[in-house]
Amino acid sequence: MTTTRPVRPDDLELICRHREAMFRESNAPGRSDDMLRTMTASFRSWLGPRLRDGSYFGSIVEEGGKAIAGIGLMLIDWPPHPSHPAEDKRGYVLNVYVEPAHRGRGLAKMLMREAEAEFARRGVSFAILHATRMGRPLYEKIGWAQTAEMSKQMLKR
Amino acid sequence: MTTTRPVRPDDLELICRHREAMFRESNAPGRSDDMLRTMTASFRSWLGPRLRDGSYFGSIVEEGGKAIAGIGLMLIDWPPHPSHPAEDKRGYVLNVYVEPAHRGRGLAKMLMREAEAEFARRGVSFAILHATRMGRPLYEKIGWAQTAEMSKQMLKR
Repeated sequence: MTTTRPVRPDDLELICRHREAMFRESNAPGRSDDMLRTMTASFRSWLGPRLRDGSYFGSIVEEGGKAIAGIGLMLIDWPPHPSHPAEDKRGYVLNVYVEPAHRGRGLAKMLMREAEAEFARRGVSFAILHATRMGRPLYEKIGWAQTAEMSKQMLKR
Repeated sequence: MTTTRPVRPDDLELICRHREAMFRESNAPGRSDDMLRTMTASFRSWLGPRLRDGSYFGSIVEEGGKAIAGIGLMLIDWPPHPSHPAEDKRGYVLNVYVEPAHRGRGLAKMLMREAEAEFARRGVSFAILHATRMGRPLYEKIGWAQTAEMSKQMLKR
């Protein structure tokens, strides 16, 4: 039986594993094991308090008592913008991960549908995510579109 | 004489005007005057406390005692990521605006160079922005690149 339950503080290691696997499998350039381990260590310290205070939420899918997929959600403080002129928050979707043996069953799509409903319940009508190459086709299929975000890596002084 | 000074709490109306003009001039679809007025009213309420506590910072360029350009900066809480594996913040650049009569003099480029230095001083090595069609060519020229951000507008329940 497949069940979906809210993320809990004791999912810390599970979510860290999902996030690292998601980035490793995305095969983007420059993602060495060393870098990913550094990221996961920092991410773990970042995530712990946010799981406890509920500012990182989301869902875990379980089958036979074993986690097989997960999604993370946040509300991020954002200046009111033409895409949400009377709201000062955006929803953020992260760490969408389905274990390889359970792909192609629509679990990610189901988690995304729940995410959108959860944002709406929390009064947020505009949400963002950063897609891996693997995830992009799914998101496009369910109505997500590329934004005009740009980034730059700078040297620290 | 052209001088650059830090943003101050009494720049509230100036920054609101810059932001609204920036979005109006971007000519993106669906940006009616009504919507922009709603956005500016919400943005003003959002910005006031952030100017006072310094979480919204940046610079204003003045000439003959009159503001002719401005830039807004923030540090946003962000999960450690392959682009910044040991940092839990990103720089954010917003409200880059140069008065029409003063364009083509390199003011935006100068403000962006200062922004990058300020982020570096604050220990942040990765920054993002959302480009208008007008701004994009400049940002590309100085090393900014498109990200994989996607967005979706949802209906509220």
